[in-house]
Amino acid sequence: MRMSKYYAPTLKEVPNDAEIKSHELLIRGGFIRKTASGVYTYLPLGNKVLKKIERIVREEMENIESQEILMPIIQPAEIWQESGRWDDYGPEMMKLKDRHNRDFTLGPTHEEMITTIVKNELRSYKQLPISLFQIANKYRDEIRPRFGVLRAREFIMKDAYSFHDSEESLDETYKAFYKAYEKILERLGVDYLVVEADTGAIGGSDSHEFQVKAEYGESTIYYCDCGYSATDEKAVSNVIFEESNETEQEMKKVDTPDVKTIEDVANFLNVDKTKIVKSLLFKGREGWVLALIRGDYELNTSKLKAYFGDQTLSMGEPEEIKNEFGVEIGFIGPVGIKNVKIVADYSIKNMKNFVVGGMEKDKHYVNVNINRDFKIDVYTDIRMVSKGEPCPKCGKPLKEIKGIEVGQVFKLGTKYSEKLHAYYTAEDGKQKPFIMGCYGWGVSRTLGAIVEQLHDDYGIIWPRNIAPFELVIIPVSMKQKELSDKAEELYKLLKGKYDVLYDDRDASPGFKFKDADLIGIPLKIILGKKMKEGKVEVKLRYERNSEEVDITEGFEELLKIIEKKLNEYDPKIYVKSIDKE
Amino acid sequence: MRMSKYYAPTLKEVPNDAEIKSHELLIRGGFIRKTASGVYTYLPLGNKVLKKIERIVREEMENIESQEILMPIIQPAEIWQESGRWDDYGPEMMKLKDRHNRDFTLGPTHEEMITTIVKNELRSYKQLPISLFQIANKYRDEIRPRFGVLRAREFIMKDAYSFHDSEESLDETYKAFYKAYEKILERLGVDYLVVEADTGAIGGSDSHEFQVKAEYGESTIYYCDCGYSATDEKAVSNVIFEESNETEQEMKKVDTPDVKTIEDVANFLNVDKTKIVKSLLFKGREGWVLALIRGDYELNTSKLKAYFGDQTLSMGEPEEIKNEFGVEIGFIGPVGIKNVKIVADYSIKNMKNFVVGGMEKDKHYVNVNINRDFKIDVYTDIRMVSKGEPCPKCGKPLKEIKGIEVGQVFKLGTKYSEKLHAYYTAEDGKQKPFIMGCYGWGVSRTLGAIVEQLHDDYGIIWPRNIAPFELVIIPVSMKQKELSDKAEELYKLLKGKYDVLYDDRDASPGFKFKDADLIGIPLKIILGKKMKEGKVEVKLRYERNSEEVDITEGFEELLKIIEKKLNEYDPKIYVKSIDKE
Repeated sequence: MRMSKYYAPTLKEVPNDAEIKSHELLIRGGFIRKTASGVYTYLPLGNKVLKKIERIVREEMENIESQEILMPIIQPAEIWQESGRWDDYGPEMMKLKDRHNRDFTLGPTHEEMITTIVKNELRSYKQLPISLFQIANKYRDEIRPRFGVLRAREFIMKDAYSFHDSEESLDETYKAFYKAYEKILERLGVDYLVVEADTGAIGGSDSHEFQVKAEYGESTIYYCDCGYSATDEKAVSNVIFEESNETEQEMKKVDTPDVKTIEDVANFLNVDKTKIVKSLLFKGREGWVLALIRGDYELNTSKLKAYFGDQTLSMGEPEEIKNEFGVEIGFIGPVGIKNVKIVADYSIKNMKNFVVGGMEKDKHYVNVNINRDFKIDVYTDIRMVSKGEPCPKCGKPLKEIKGIEVGQVFKLGTKYSEKLHAYYTAEDGKQKPFIMGCYGWGVSRTLGAIVEQLHDDYGIIWPRNIAPFELVIIPVSMKQKELSDKAEELYKLLKGKYDVLYDDRDASPGFKFKDADLIGIPLKIILGKKMKEGKVEVKLRYERNSEEVDITEGFEELLKIIEKKLNEYDPKIYVKSIDKE
Repeated sequence: MRMSKYYAPTLKEVPNDAEIKSHELLIRGGFIRKTASGVYTYLPLGNKVLKKIERIVREEMENIESQEILMPIIQPAEIWQESGRWDDYGPEMMKLKDRHNRDFTLGPTHEEMITTIVKNELRSYKQLPISLFQIANKYRDEIRPRFGVLRAREFIMKDAYSFHDSEESLDETYKAFYKAYEKILERLGVDYLVVEADTGAIGGSDSHEFQVKAEYGESTIYYCDCGYSATDEKAVSNVIFEESNETEQEMKKVDTPDVKTIEDVANFLNVDKTKIVKSLLFKGREGWVLALIRGDYELNTSKLKAYFGDQTLSMGEPEEIKNEFGVEIGFIGPVGIKNVKIVADYSIKNMKNFVVGGMEKDKHYVNVNINRDFKIDVYTDIRMVSKGEPCPKCGKPLKEIKGIEVGQVFKLGTKYSEKLHAYYTAEDGKQKPFIMGCYGWGVSRTLGAIVEQLHDDYGIIWPRNIAPFELVIIPVSMKQKELSDKAEELYKLLKGKYDVLYDDRDASPGFKFKDADLIGIPLKIILGKKMKEGKVEVKLRYERNSEEVDITEGFEELLKIIEKKLNEYDPKIYVKSIDKE
């Protein structure tokens, strides 16, 4: 491709709304342009990378014999009403009406759709297992879209769904997808981690996320050298909450004027946070839930939702709480509260003589004790872990790292097949609901994740397999005929072998080098001063010094060196090395 | 691919809503499934054909150096408001609001979007000409979706847009796309016609449509052996309307009780339809238009809209007309009517002493004459032509044929660049609006169009280049080990060379043959009785008799025959031959 005719508008300025490097570089490099909040156009460079990512994903799906289909983006409301998610999914679901006033959604995911498609047509256990995938747009109306293509409202996903007649069969396919995803990440050429994950709004039992490591990743991951790793939403640890040997004191209600936060309470009453129990009210499908946790810990909402199997569960609004319980949010506590289910984290199980809200403005109870002063409905783990806590597998301190999720696999079980009445005839002749799995890969988000990991001060450093161009030919001047002629000759020779960009613009060498680095092309072939001696310069994206290659005798040597350098090229090793500097 | 594990549910029954053969066969063959009215899922077979069509279209776009991008499906209202099409486009445009109550449309087309994207970034005449394309979903909320993927509400299009600094440059690119489209049709292997076309809601000056010939095509085309061809919306003819030598009679108002249609009037007054002038009221952006045409002709609404450059122009509702003009729709006429623009077809120019509506219930005027009794604002061609009328180029009788539009190219001029303020710096330093072209190809509709042309009583007859599989291996029994073993061997050999389906289902040969014919696979390799003599049978989709090939000495001969037969294979010649039978 000739750069003079290529639509790749690069920018010097950092866009206003770019909070992270990948967003900035994809805009500045001319890969994407924003059309509306969270809605992007992929310019030729961006589209090229996208299509290369798509191809790798598609090939790995075909390698595990998943069959490609294409489902509609606009989905009728009825199937979502049947599964119960029309109301449950919340405001992230974009909805519209057609001219006949029928309700549709712009599909945020396709479990309902695929289940509806195969039901009545996938009939016998003999046809199982089977998996179907598609690569298509998805829509989630994020309240605050950000980070460019990493958290967009319109995005491209590969989603796959599998159907089984046994847990063992699901397990086998789940593992095949797991391996295919690792293969994709290896072909993409990035550093990654596979972690245990929460199943969220999709539901089901097991789930794993595939995370691209990145300094400013959205996900926090806890991991251990022993192999344990999980997202913060899912991570557990082996912290032991020791039995207290205090004797129970008399409970008292004390004045705590304007003392609302845990910090305030600790300071005002001069007690440690570990002597306070935090009380948080949530509202879900089945009413109010009071969650209790030790004052120095953070509540893990994902674990709470997972425990109740209720994704609609959300923190009560202050106004609503006041109306319902007659007391401000800062003074809520388990003593005397009514019409709530009380769920407690294990961290409070052995506490004695602790502080809780007084269920009255400006009051707290001190010397509170479980069972004597209030009852707990259930204990479970609803706590966020922290780095340094003991690994649940081996006990060594957990480490923390940031990542960007690009893939997630789920064991759905019969959640959707039961709700949507999708049955097959089993070997014993009985009608049984399909056991299902689902497997998502964020295609457009992969673009952002890779740039977030692989860049330096000058721009993007694309891995060879997905670089928009593998190499760029740069004559330092188009006015010197001997340079442009040779460049032209080289371009014609190389474009059959590689994905080549020929920077034939009438611009300064510095300008061209900067663009090549910003865009992130793996290899530069520079035709400059050394051409007088019959030499071109060859340089990998991250190399400081170029290698001179004599072309007076022809291009054979040059071709060898190009191939050698491109084979050696590994941006993730380079990026790790600059991280350590 | 092994048929036993392939998701291709074929059906015996004809679906209720299938009015035409392509719709029926794509459903029955397991290519598509309906999700909602005009909304389809592409099952593995359908997706496979779709991807092959996409690939051909993409390659031909790349051959003319068009650059691929990807624009959003959800488009903000603002850009459509700027162009004036937010209101003009009508109820076909699907609209939605996001969670912040901002208006979006599911793009029915992308002129506004592309113009907004390049403005301010495509700056200089030096960057021109340039063309950008995408392959993506489009949405048009058809009032009555029908014919399967031919008139769907969600569909896949390739749309391209070009930018120029001169009409000559636009002309050159327009021709390049024209040729690329012909190339696509040749690679697709169908019979087609390129015709002059109306520009419709897209606007602009010149336009051509690329039509796949088909018995039940939606478009009517008039053409002549001399090379002239146009859609019925656009076609003109050389009919001469001769001067009348009658003397003008006195105009009279006569009673015509309950006489409303042209037929009724002709019968009641015992006059020929050629002595009546039809009066039709339209409402547009600038008010009411009264269109007049000779009683035996049909009005061409597309020509009327094109004349006024107003796509919102539509036939007045009876109720509205009665309110506005105080008279029922059947008695409207040009004499005495007020507040309308009167536009007349050339067919009435030379008429004398004709009949028109009386502008009063149950009345008509007779012996009406132009100028004396009413004035005409403008004469223009607003008439539908008929077959047999003289060709506008050579005078020979026009022929009529049906077709399905798969592509359309437009010269847009500066319509969008002016409205959206998209300027470039010209060679003389001045700011000028881009001259634009746009080029659409209906990717999913191509699927339907091809099947509509290429089928017989048994099913689809795919051309080789887009067939889901090039050949199918059919052992007549899976229980006879010598057959299934040989089939397996053959499958392994052929799948590296061709797109092969192996029908390894435990089913009767008749069942397998029927499915292969319904699905439309070009070549069958049958392992049956003749295997005792070491022979397999090879048969093209439309051949009655198979060719026996000896494989006792190996597969060499078989490979040669497969290649020879596939090279000879041409469904469009076969289909023409059965049409003549």
